[in-house]
Amino acid sequence: MSTQKYAISLDVGGTFTKAAVVDRTGGQCLFKAALATRTDLPSPQVPDYLVEQIRALMADAEVATGDVAGISIGLPGVINQRTGRAISCPNLRNWEDLPLADQVAQRIGLPTWMEKDANQAALGELWLGAARQIEHSICFTLGTGIGTGIILNGQLYRGGMGGAGEIGHLPILPNGPQCGCGNHGCLEALASASAVSREARAAVEQDSQSAMVALAGGQAEAITSEIVFAAARAGDATAQCVLDTALEYLGIGIASIINAFNPDLIVLGGGMAQAGEQLLSPIRNVVGQHARRPLAEHVNIVLTELGSMAGVLGGAYLVFSHADR
Amino acid sequence: MSTQKYAISLDVGGTFTKAAVVDRTGGQCLFKAALATRTDLPSPQVPDYLVEQIRALMADAEVATGDVAGISIGLPGVINQRTGRAISCPNLRNWEDLPLADQVAQRIGLPTWMEKDANQAALGELWLGAARQIEHSICFTLGTGIGTGIILNGQLYRGGMGGAGEIGHLPILPNGPQCGCGNHGCLEALASASAVSREARAAVEQDSQSAMVALAGGQAEAITSEIVFAAARAGDATAQCVLDTALEYLGIGIASIINAFNPDLIVLGGGMAQAGEQLLSPIRNVVGQHARRPLAEHVNIVLTELGSMAGVLGGAYLVFSHADR
Repeated sequence: MSTQKYAISLDVGGTFTKAAVVDRTGGQCLFKAALATRTDLPSPQVPDYLVEQIRALMADAEVATGDVAGISIGLPGVINQRTGRAISCPNLRNWEDLPLADQVAQRIGLPTWMEKDANQAALGELWLGAARQIEHSICFTLGTGIGTGIILNGQLYRGGMGGAGEIGHLPILPNGPQCGCGNHGCLEALASASAVSREARAAVEQDSQSAMVALAGGQAEAITSEIVFAAARAGDATAQCVLDTALEYLGIGIASIINAFNPDLIVLGGGMAQAGEQLLSPIRNVVGQHARRPLAEHVNIVLTELGSMAGVLGGAYLVFSHADR
Repeated sequence: MSTQKYAISLDVGGTFTKAAVVDRTGGQCLFKAALATRTDLPSPQVPDYLVEQIRALMADAEVATGDVAGISIGLPGVINQRTGRAISCPNLRNWEDLPLADQVAQRIGLPTWMEKDANQAALGELWLGAARQIEHSICFTLGTGIGTGIILNGQLYRGGMGGAGEIGHLPILPNGPQCGCGNHGCLEALASASAVSREARAAVEQDSQSAMVALAGGQAEAITSEIVFAAARAGDATAQCVLDTALEYLGIGIASIINAFNPDLIVLGGGMAQAGEQLLSPIRNVVGQHARRPLAEHVNIVLTELGSMAGVLGGAYLVFSHADR
């Protein structure tokens, strides 16, 4: 077992980057930060930008290189673990096809790994959250997109080339709305936070009295999925209808995954998980209708215990796991 | 490593049971048989019936108990590996909830395992067929139903309680035709051999001139999926239309599985695989449209190499794997 006490973990999103210095024992964050992600940088500048962020983080946290076991960089896309490059990262196109882990490792002198953000989140829940000591768990990150991280036999399952868990692109509705991937009717195009807000904006064109408009300050284009959940809680029928449709699709997608993997646990995380029971209860109902009965009875469906910190904590777990091999 | 040379393997279907005595080295069948499955037996008689079949098989093959490493019984349903009982076996209802492996083991005095038939088939392909030396493969058995066996990291993946791979019950088409499981629009209700023949029978009601009717001896109710494939090969437009629809759904189901598991290999087996390129080529096209591009480019989709013997050979592999532990 290595002796370094800390891991540096980044969870890079299309808008914000969460970063933390995480303690080995108990997974406490010595220091954490949320930074805007520079999506405008040309590819050659991305590694230096990351190095700059990491050095600033180490300085703020007052940790020396010798105290750090390694670095994990989570990205919202498919990471080819054989080449160490992001091969499909729709919200960070300039970051694709770069050997970022190697480039950072060379510049900072610390072992560095790159991982799909949803995989980091699943590892976080496994280490410190809802999936502790669970053999087979699948963690959904429900946000701008829909990602999953899959833990089988207590270990991260990445598939043939790092692309397992592309559940956001399950084909759910033939000829449904177009998805960012180019196909139509993918789960993500029907049930992500972006899909919910898109459908809500369309719905208020027919119902300008909906509470969603007032909650968005009178501007339909400012309606977010949070506003849809809030309006539905307040009894707004149009908001409830948008949610019912989206959560029916989401439940069908989750039922598919349960039929395929027969997991012990499904963890719902990401921004939409903040809706709590308002998300959980309809999902449990739809899963009960669409998954095979013995599998539906076996699985537990719960909310994230780590919230928005799941990803950075999972990245730290990845670092310590590698360091201790 | 145990020294017994043979495994006894049964692949029990809703109509026929394939049985074989299989040699450890190279998986040659010393003796094989196909028997009608007694589906009418009351539950208490099932274990003695199985024992009778196994004893007859050993006598015909002239092997003594001391030469046999063990017995594998494949059933078309979900086997709860914790209780050793079939918990969902729609075509053999009287065989459900019996501790068959224990009952057979006690009566014959040989270690006995019970396994889902599609898992046996996947193990057969892994041992001697299309999935040899492949890390992550998923084997589809396309027959009366649709089953899959999942090999991850070179090992059978069964999920939390033996139910992984219930791909036949992926919800594909909301409000589609009813499935044997009670739900509507499951993959199996849209794309199994039974679904193909059901849709063909409905189609010839509108097109009594279809070649399918003549191929079925003038009796629409005698149309099988083999006849649908044969008529389509002969240029029958109605048959082709039925197939196009079913294979589109099948391809969407396979694309879902590719997006979820990122497998290296998909093996298509079961009765429908006899259609060869007529099955393979449309499936590859649909998968190319619906799976994530890097995952679709990564996966190889092939036909079974073991045909109807995949299950019994996989059962034998299971026996030898356990015996050598």
